[in-house]
Amino acid sequence: MSPTNRQVRLAARPSGLPKPSDWDHVEEPVPTPAAGEFVVAISHLSLDPAMRGWMNPGASYIEPVEVGDVMRAGAVGRVTASEHSGFAVGDHVYGALGVQEHALSDGKGVVMIDPSLAPLPTYLGTLGLTGMTAYFGLLDVGKLKESDTVVVSGAAGAVGSVAGQIAKIKGARAIGIAGGAEKCRWLVDDLGFDGAIDYKTEDVARALREHAPSGVDLYFDNVGGEILDAVLTRLARGARVVICGAVSQYNATESVRGPSNYLSLLVYRASMTGMVVFDYAARFGQAAGEIAGWMREGRLISREDIVEGGVQAFPDALLKLFSGENVGKLVLRVDSD
Amino acid sequence: MSPTNRQVRLAARPSGLPKPSDWDHVEEPVPTPAAGEFVVAISHLSLDPAMRGWMNPGASYIEPVEVGDVMRAGAVGRVTASEHSGFAVGDHVYGALGVQEHALSDGKGVVMIDPSLAPLPTYLGTLGLTGMTAYFGLLDVGKLKESDTVVVSGAAGAVGSVAGQIAKIKGARAIGIAGGAEKCRWLVDDLGFDGAIDYKTEDVARALREHAPSGVDLYFDNVGGEILDAVLTRLARGARVVICGAVSQYNATESVRGPSNYLSLLVYRASMTGMVVFDYAARFGQAAGEIAGWMREGRLISREDIVEGGVQAFPDALLKLFSGENVGKLVLRVDSD
Repeated sequence: MSPTNRQVRLAARPSGLPKPSDWDHVEEPVPTPAAGEFVVAISHLSLDPAMRGWMNPGASYIEPVEVGDVMRAGAVGRVTASEHSGFAVGDHVYGALGVQEHALSDGKGVVMIDPSLAPLPTYLGTLGLTGMTAYFGLLDVGKLKESDTVVVSGAAGAVGSVAGQIAKIKGARAIGIAGGAEKCRWLVDDLGFDGAIDYKTEDVARALREHAPSGVDLYFDNVGGEILDAVLTRLARGARVVICGAVSQYNATESVRGPSNYLSLLVYRASMTGMVVFDYAARFGQAAGEIAGWMREGRLISREDIVEGGVQAFPDALLKLFSGENVGKLVLRVDSD
Repeated sequence: MSPTNRQVRLAARPSGLPKPSDWDHVEEPVPTPAAGEFVVAISHLSLDPAMRGWMNPGASYIEPVEVGDVMRAGAVGRVTASEHSGFAVGDHVYGALGVQEHALSDGKGVVMIDPSLAPLPTYLGTLGLTGMTAYFGLLDVGKLKESDTVVVSGAAGAVGSVAGQIAKIKGARAIGIAGGAEKCRWLVDDLGFDGAIDYKTEDVARALREHAPSGVDLYFDNVGGEILDAVLTRLARGARVVICGAVSQYNATESVRGPSNYLSLLVYRASMTGMVVFDYAARFGQAAGEIAGWMREGRLISREDIVEGGVQAFPDALLKLFSGENVGKLVLRVDSD
């Protein structure tokens, strides 16, 4: 354990893609818990497109990170010191512990996890918020039906890859949209998607005519922008569009590009609904149990894309999400054990 | 009765606002019914923003009007000749009879109306498709609740003025957005809206902060464009946005302006749903009966803005919808009785 606690703090609100100067690398002493507190040695950090939104000023579905604060991040780790009756040294936990090596916590929002059931990084992805987002977005917001043709954008990403697999498990057809032949092959060959569209080389609207000849019943959108517009032209009557995110727009320096084809909602009597996964927190345990069961049965593959390099590597690792480099859940390894 | 049947036919597909050269004025002999047919002398034509969409190529929720065809229009009139067992000379009817003085019909889509219950033009508006659109858009698609703050755009128009009044009748708060002080006064003083915002002189988002301090629960959108974007920033959590139309965009020569603020759907866990009134045809009778009851009780005011001049005046009259000149339902009087 290093005697210091390396942290990454927000130095400035970025315009467009975050620059190195938007971050401060700080070293502090490892904290000591007071009564009711404990300290977690963080092993892995979650990297999420939503982080870009947290860096903007103004309240959204969650308060922004203030300039000067440790950057917010989901993390897993091990309790190394405790004055808290609910958490003992050696316990493994998940929480929004921030981009740092050691986090002081009063236990709020921190949950126990079991490393014997799944590797720690899986609790940041498929058994964590991204898996929960896929599960509740598809089943609750999207009201998935067995007869649906489901299209998922960002399909090789953390949320999309799980969403498509859950659609298949529930008996629906799943078509993924991803960037690059390798990702598309992975979706079809390894994850069992019925089809994949490479948006970098294919015309998405035209490809959907082939892959979804009767139209798209449920579109799970992670990206926004041109892909959202293309799918809107190929909806089935009564289609449901789940707005989970818009990674193509998070670094927009001019205004966000709204979906020009939104009047397709009228033509197809369709709906577009936004979701925030935290609303389903009371049911996370049940959902994670179900997903873990599918993983055990080999019906759902969880993939993590683990970046080495510790918290210093956080600024660069975050950018991978926006260049579309990652496959599966992007995770930063913090410890060096 | 004129010995000829004056008609307006689509001469060319317009780019932007329809020009005089996009129309052909044609005279044909008044038709004679064959077996199973009847002829209607049209008294009034309905003018609807949706007509602009019917003039574009490509299937939408309804087939386009072909170049050379009589322009599609809802109409009311009186049967003047009949070889049809269901319609007798003297009957008053409503149907999509087209921009002409005399229509030949086989009865498909034509319904009997009773001029003793309401003036004929009311069957084109509040007791016709625009009233039905307001009713089902608000109650079925929008799932109106008594506790809702409802915002209606195009509020002084045919659909909007009825939607706001139904919201009030159902116990909700109604805020209208309209262009001009006179329309706004009419909404509040005559129709009983709780407030009105003049988008020509007020900042809509700022005004909504006053009129809907807890946010907009249900937004009934007839206009799209900047106003939709402004309302999206002021939604309440779980808000429902009903997309009924987008009159600001129908004459766009470049691409339609999509709502840049659509990610508010995520922030507010809101939905945006498109509607087409024809889907509710089976329940039109029940809805019209209920609306007629409110009119009789003096709780719902129906206003028609009647343009004189016969079918020749159709091209100019249509443009009034896009310049926002009409208050209430815009109707063209065809007969000269």
